[in-house]
Amino acid sequence: MTAPKTPLLDRIAGPADLRAMSDADLGHVADELRAETIHAVSRTGGHLGAGLGVVELTVALHAVFDTPRDRLIWDVSHQCYPHKILTGRRTRMDSLRQKDGLSGFTKRTESDYDPFGAAHASTSISAALGFAMGRELGAPGNGDAIAVIGDGALTGGMAFEALNHAGHLKKRLIVILNDNEMSIAPPVGALSSYLSRLYAGNPFHDLKAAAKGAVGFLPPPLQEGARRAKEMLKGMTVGGTMFEELGFSYVGPIDGHDMETLLGVLRAVKSRADGPILIHAITKKGKGFRPAESARDGGHATARFDVGTGVQTKAKSNAPSYTKVYAESLLQEAADDDRICAVTAAMPDGTGLNLFAERFPARCFDVGIAEQHGVTFCAGLAASGMKPFCTIYSTFLQRGYDQIVHDVALQNLPVRFAIDRAGLVGADGPTHAGSFDIAYLSNLPGMVVMAAADEAELRHMVATAAAYDDGPIAFRFPRGEGVGCEMPERGTPLEIGKGRVVHEGSGVAILSFGARLAEVEAARERLAARGITPTVADARFAKPLDRDLILGLARDHDVLITIEEGAVGGFGSHVAQLLSDEGVFDAGLKFRSMVLPDAFIDQAGPAQMYADAQLNASDIEAKVLDILGIEVLERRA
Amino acid sequence: MTAPKTPLLDRIAGPADLRAMSDADLGHVADELRAETIHAVSRTGGHLGAGLGVVELTVALHAVFDTPRDRLIWDVSHQCYPHKILTGRRTRMDSLRQKDGLSGFTKRTESDYDPFGAAHASTSISAALGFAMGRELGAPGNGDAIAVIGDGALTGGMAFEALNHAGHLKKRLIVILNDNEMSIAPPVGALSSYLSRLYAGNPFHDLKAAAKGAVGFLPPPLQEGARRAKEMLKGMTVGGTMFEELGFSYVGPIDGHDMETLLGVLRAVKSRADGPILIHAITKKGKGFRPAESARDGGHATARFDVGTGVQTKAKSNAPSYTKVYAESLLQEAADDDRICAVTAAMPDGTGLNLFAERFPARCFDVGIAEQHGVTFCAGLAASGMKPFCTIYSTFLQRGYDQIVHDVALQNLPVRFAIDRAGLVGADGPTHAGSFDIAYLSNLPGMVVMAAADEAELRHMVATAAAYDDGPIAFRFPRGEGVGCEMPERGTPLEIGKGRVVHEGSGVAILSFGARLAEVEAARERLAARGITPTVADARFAKPLDRDLILGLARDHDVLITIEEGAVGGFGSHVAQLLSDEGVFDAGLKFRSMVLPDAFIDQAGPAQMYADAQLNASDIEAKVLDILGIEVLERRA
Repeated sequence: MTAPKTPLLDRIAGPADLRAMSDADLGHVADELRAETIHAVSRTGGHLGAGLGVVELTVALHAVFDTPRDRLIWDVSHQCYPHKILTGRRTRMDSLRQKDGLSGFTKRTESDYDPFGAAHASTSISAALGFAMGRELGAPGNGDAIAVIGDGALTGGMAFEALNHAGHLKKRLIVILNDNEMSIAPPVGALSSYLSRLYAGNPFHDLKAAAKGAVGFLPPPLQEGARRAKEMLKGMTVGGTMFEELGFSYVGPIDGHDMETLLGVLRAVKSRADGPILIHAITKKGKGFRPAESARDGGHATARFDVGTGVQTKAKSNAPSYTKVYAESLLQEAADDDRICAVTAAMPDGTGLNLFAERFPARCFDVGIAEQHGVTFCAGLAASGMKPFCTIYSTFLQRGYDQIVHDVALQNLPVRFAIDRAGLVGADGPTHAGSFDIAYLSNLPGMVVMAAADEAELRHMVATAAAYDDGPIAFRFPRGEGVGCEMPERGTPLEIGKGRVVHEGSGVAILSFGARLAEVEAARERLAARGITPTVADARFAKPLDRDLILGLARDHDVLITIEEGAVGGFGSHVAQLLSDEGVFDAGLKFRSMVLPDAFIDQAGPAQMYADAQLNASDIEAKVLDILGIEVLERRA
Repeated sequence: MTAPKTPLLDRIAGPADLRAMSDADLGHVADELRAETIHAVSRTGGHLGAGLGVVELTVALHAVFDTPRDRLIWDVSHQCYPHKILTGRRTRMDSLRQKDGLSGFTKRTESDYDPFGAAHASTSISAALGFAMGRELGAPGNGDAIAVIGDGALTGGMAFEALNHAGHLKKRLIVILNDNEMSIAPPVGALSSYLSRLYAGNPFHDLKAAAKGAVGFLPPPLQEGARRAKEMLKGMTVGGTMFEELGFSYVGPIDGHDMETLLGVLRAVKSRADGPILIHAITKKGKGFRPAESARDGGHATARFDVGTGVQTKAKSNAPSYTKVYAESLLQEAADDDRICAVTAAMPDGTGLNLFAERFPARCFDVGIAEQHGVTFCAGLAASGMKPFCTIYSTFLQRGYDQIVHDVALQNLPVRFAIDRAGLVGADGPTHAGSFDIAYLSNLPGMVVMAAADEAELRHMVATAAAYDDGPIAFRFPRGEGVGCEMPERGTPLEIGKGRVVHEGSGVAILSFGARLAEVEAARERLAARGITPTVADARFAKPLDRDLILGLARDHDVLITIEEGAVGGFGSHVAQLLSDEGVFDAGLKFRSMVLPDAFIDQAGPAQMYADAQLNASDIEAKVLDILGIEVLERRA
């Protein structure tokens, strides 16, 4: 693949260089930046569509504002690739989302131009308001605070909370609504309809003249100038009552791909805004790359691809993904039980629930990027007598934590939590790791917590959750492919709180919770070569614990090791609590709990991340040898 | 105190009896219900103002709708006392908020008329929408779903998420906005200004005729009737664009104390609504009881009081409250450091930050009921160079959990979390218990987690947090009075990750994290009478752990007991992880971790709740004796 010709872009070492360019040249830079972005992502894969939608906006923002002193905050930030290319990271784009490479998101430690990192949605206005108030309170080095947020992210309640607070504080703050009528999936919610109505049937308001006029004024505080500037900004408005009601000035809607408009509006806002202002820019996700533009998700995320055809190079898979197994298993259960319904928070494709929505549209709910509401909505459904499967990635379920405690667990309502992307997730890195759910669910009274050791187990756990109606129940499973085990036709409900012994052995017992089981098995084979034959067990449940299994393993072995794909405080901690309560430690037990380390693990392939976390087969083997006092030197021989 | 005369109320065994009454009598019932509510709360204390504001609404809702089949959901539900009196719980009102008595909130296990419990804000629309969709999907026994939500609770983002989703689904759902211009404190936020503008300067729209007309129609599905009914509802509107933009029909504003209007509007809505509808009722918190009406907080919560004068009977306090010590200590630090600022989520009085707001108004932020935004706003402030103290009760901080993980911990931003109401809290019961924060904070990489053993320690921890600028730091402290210890003039920063030995002893070591220390000390005295002299230590930090202290205690004693005011997964679990990692269990250690039990503990006095949790001095003593093998019989002698 030859690189595109980018003569203007090649002259740009950083945003300051943009500020010396003519408006016409900035338009050309945008064209080159788009080609460069497509080229870069074609070689690495990653989030493509969102970045292509904000190429002009990225150029215009950096040209008009004094970044990094002006704080530019990208919501979610999967649209940040053009921003990275412009802010000194162009030569490192081929390391994107790889080990030791550039993050796929903004990251404070990566660049001064990333004042606030992101990856989860709806945080940018809150963060920008923090910067704005820091500036007002005299914290040095803080200029304007600018949040760029998509229409999807705006459905998250915390964005509304932030608008409400900003409108109350009335200080200068710039919010750019990047409205592409799209989050990852097509948007849901009444807000989306409202935004559409703001420009439906109306051509873009021609704000160029107005913007130019506004810039021509003398700057505030000349009162007359300020008043007229305000009127001028007002004249740039053709709707947006809702935002005005929340105390924002509203400008728009404007064509987010028209450089002249963008520059004019941003300059006017920069010189005139004296309170919170929202600029409503209409963009197209995937803009300028036909395969992305025409994709249902706007080319949201992609593997490496051919720039000419858009055809992606995908690795061949050997086993079905856990996501697919979950989705298909749930369909089986739902076909037999019309009380089963499914809820996703703006991730129908990622969770596999698109299949459910096709088959049982009335029973499938996409609540938007709204995990708090999603969880309590499920609690309401459960209280009404339905069987909701609340299907949210581990990392995003954190956003509904209080609702799990207060609305579900406290009322013992039978909500089923299907927790995808549990454990480390690879290229998306630490922001997407599902590290904490075992801990934050297992200490809730009445909660049942399962983890699937493989895809067959997952199928059984879906059946278990469908059958269990006595209270809340959760099951977690990792990102990616299963292990390729034989699949049962249908799931069979498991006995609650009962694990299973996978291999009988002696001396050492390894008790796995979740999908590390395959690594435990591999460790067992390595150890067998040395005459060490551990017992291997699959706990299946972190709550309730299988007391008989655990106490039996402790009684019959000298060494007991637990392992899980989660942080301390989860399964291993509950086992330790049981063992200490029962006095098992009193006379001595070589007990170890292998958990994620006390560090956020940077992006890499999942296997590499687990190597960094020291939770792979070789680490398990080493742990056993270490406890048995077998020398490292010998081990390495 | 003589009970009020309530001849009509006395005839009411349940809501069905209301439905047989004339409208005029319903008005009289409301008057009696108000007197009864005041009388009841005067004897028990509790949440008074909110209930008095919805007396007429409560009567009208139960008279018009078919509760409990129609699902009436009170947001937060501290306004539910009149509802409880009407729904078969009148005779038990003297047990309110006491052990084994009525809950101060709605509770599913208490009554069929409480279809969905609450205590945290902003959940009701989500829950009601769940019931509504359950009904639509054929779940039997579900009639109308009605959420009653205050203007304060509406600032919580999840309420917006739910409105957005309900507007999208377009199914029949009734939301009553109980607008008293008040949450617990006076309201903040642009939304509040918006709501005020909806009725500012306009007398209430006279909807009585319109409502009567609407009821007169033939019921749907006659299309013409439906169309005209819709128009009629439309005619009941004088504003509310924001809600209409979110897909709701808007009715109001109406006088929430005018029974005739309420009955008319509710009947019209009941017979005509065919989608989501919002009724905007204006009420007065504390209505009808002068001392409450004139209080700054509308008589939000009260001790027992004299009905004639409103004078409250408060127990004399022996020591300053932790809240007060926190607030005063923070003021001391803030006086010396103008980077310190403070954030509360709608609880300026409860957190003591009202003092901060008076002294340093520019540096004090009330974000509204908006914990998600509040946490990330603090992250932004910290990134700008400020030192924010994010002051949120333990139980409510759960609502910002993902923001703590994603915006604070992952970016290692120095946000200070001041966590009041940690542990069990007494009369507010299990919904307000702060049980999980040790666990959900201590497993976050880079987080520092402290707990104050007494009020002097709290002062030092405030100083520690003010001085520490390397990353996030949290300190927790209980509800209520301190222990009466000597107070230092100023706090002195503690060494991070270092605990202290309080009493040197032998054989047994008790390592306390937080305010159980006084109970540990009491247990030590009891044990001393038997010649058992435990070492007592105060860990101060759950993270980072004081490895030297802990490993030293383990080495030098036969028994090591940890104790904390939190659930499993927290301090004790981290200690167990350390001990197992270091091989301390290999040769035997009598280790026990005393934590909150695996159950939600019902309301009672805090000491009683800790007795139920088995974390008092006698329980610690018993634990020691049990481990030492000293017989229970002897112990009881």
